[in-house]
Amino acid sequence: MVSRNEINMADVAQRAGVSVATVSRALRGLPGVGEATRTRILEIAEELAYVISPEASRLSGGPTRRVGVVVPATEKWFYGEMLAAIERRLRAADLDVLLYQVSDVAVRSRFFRELPTRRKVDAVVLIALPLPQQEVDRLDHLGVEVVVAGGRIRDFPHVEVDDRAIARTAVEHLVGLGHSRIAMVRATIYGDEHWAPDTLRLEGYLAGLTEAGLPHREEYVVSVPFTPTDGAAAAEQLRSLPEPPTAILCFSDEVAFGAMQGLRALGLRVPEDVSVVGIDDHPLAEVMGLTTVRQDVAAQGELAAEMALLRLDHRRVEDVVLSHELVVRSSTAPPPERADA
Amino acid sequence: MVSRNEINMADVAQRAGVSVATVSRALRGLPGVGEATRTRILEIAEELAYVISPEASRLSGGPTRRVGVVVPATEKWFYGEMLAAIERRLRAADLDVLLYQVSDVAVRSRFFRELPTRRKVDAVVLIALPLPQQEVDRLDHLGVEVVVAGGRIRDFPHVEVDDRAIARTAVEHLVGLGHSRIAMVRATIYGDEHWAPDTLRLEGYLAGLTEAGLPHREEYVVSVPFTPTDGAAAAEQLRSLPEPPTAILCFSDEVAFGAMQGLRALGLRVPEDVSVVGIDDHPLAEVMGLTTVRQDVAAQGELAAEMALLRLDHRRVEDVVLSHELVVRSSTAPPPERADA
Repeated sequence: MVSRNEINMADVAQRAGVSVATVSRALRGLPGVGEATRTRILEIAEELAYVISPEASRLSGGPTRRVGVVVPATEKWFYGEMLAAIERRLRAADLDVLLYQVSDVAVRSRFFRELPTRRKVDAVVLIALPLPQQEVDRLDHLGVEVVVAGGRIRDFPHVEVDDRAIARTAVEHLVGLGHSRIAMVRATIYGDEHWAPDTLRLEGYLAGLTEAGLPHREEYVVSVPFTPTDGAAAAEQLRSLPEPPTAILCFSDEVAFGAMQGLRALGLRVPEDVSVVGIDDHPLAEVMGLTTVRQDVAAQGELAAEMALLRLDHRRVEDVVLSHELVVRSSTAPPPERADA
Repeated sequence: MVSRNEINMADVAQRAGVSVATVSRALRGLPGVGEATRTRILEIAEELAYVISPEASRLSGGPTRRVGVVVPATEKWFYGEMLAAIERRLRAADLDVLLYQVSDVAVRSRFFRELPTRRKVDAVVLIALPLPQQEVDRLDHLGVEVVVAGGRIRDFPHVEVDDRAIARTAVEHLVGLGHSRIAMVRATIYGDEHWAPDTLRLEGYLAGLTEAGLPHREEYVVSVPFTPTDGAAAAEQLRSLPEPPTAILCFSDEVAFGAMQGLRALGLRVPEDVSVVGIDDHPLAEVMGLTTVRQDVAAQGELAAEMALLRLDHRRVEDVVLSHELVVRSSTAPPPERADA
């Protein structure tokens, strides 16, 4: 069995005249690489003597018994919850978690610059974070297994939810209640970067509007950092429009909590005047009465950790898309025009 | 300079006929050990040849460049926030963080049983968690620097806030508004364990009542796990008393958010009918209008990490008590009797 641990894929790629990504796919036995190319890549890898048996690997230092978990910020509930589940699963398998917090762009690029030069971990679990192409490419040079949780990065094994369908489900709920002026609060990270979950949710929101025959109104889409305070500001901004929305879909529950309070601060009632929908089912959503689309964050973390364990055992893994669920609480109702009619 | 890294303190303690704690104090140069005893302990430590120079230490494997951070649960805001700050400070010093989540009693005892037998980290930062005496004792056998964040454990260097004063400040605020029926929602961890911050906050609450000449009413103190949902249940329980409280001090903001919503679910207004005070200044506190006693969680984490770095550099450190601040928002007001008068 080919072990990726000790392979310098850049060398193999250069000799084979293919991209590092192709080497990576070939060595992992993934589809998309022709049989002749795959054979050639495996031969070169062996020729370069980088392919060594697990026994030799142990003699030459062996596995570290550590898995790196890369996360933007542990103080955000989504990341803390996912990290908790990943750590528990890896701990149960007697592996240690090395925590890499990439809280800003500089730290993120430092991580991708430096980690490959050290042998600190056997595998890396990336928790949904936006990566420029250059850093995605460097993942191949890590020389370790890479698994993605809460999204997808290129073709690395991943666990995710269907973010497009999640947003569409929320819009369908609002349309079903009679709303036609539906806004969306998007979320940014690392200053003003949008990442896949956000982009996909925007697509789902727009698809939901199209499906209902509703226009896309540019002024109804607002982007803010995903904090409650920014959620409140976004709601205030939306309500200051000449024709304000009667319903607001928020990127996450934390943004939605802020939006609810921001609306109340304007003297508006939720849901009588404005409906609010979140995404997540945060521990506070129930007591706040927030209608939301639930995703199982802990399950995503646990499955991603499981995937990393399987890959370390040289087993094939299948990507996973977990289901979501609309949870209707008391923050959504028909729009006021309709209620009055 | 004596390095604790390679000293088997149990051996030294046995030969010197003193407790491991005394050996620990003596080697760290802390007060509370007589000069003769200290000299004797140092001699024995050297005699046992466990005391080796940093150079020899590096030759024998050297530092791991890793710090273990032990935390009950990363999905709780307080722990996630503190972990974020600790990781950032250690990362800036080019050290890695090995994450140990001790989410239940079994995992906690496994950690204290197994870590000492391995050389995985150079230091351990413990984030406020309750420890039975037996596990506190084992900390001496870790053979690495130990620092405590967000509380104190025996005489290990620590960063904390004055939990007693925090609760007393909250009670004084409520008394100042005219409340005499003030309840407290305590928090438990690991099932039904109370830990130091909780016990100290109870003491501060009771001291505040005494100072105001108010009786201690046993039925006004309720203990729940620290989640919003349990906070809501606690508020409902308190309001079902024959003479219900007009103000509720909650262990943390997350409990307080739940209490506010629980009261609203009963048809009560906050603060007109019942006042609610939290502790923390959670990111949601501002938009929720929660009056709270602010503590700087990130600063505690950063300072604890700094302390660990200093100890690794064989420098003395001073324990730190960070200040707190009452932040009055819209969840507190005079009690209804007084407002009506």
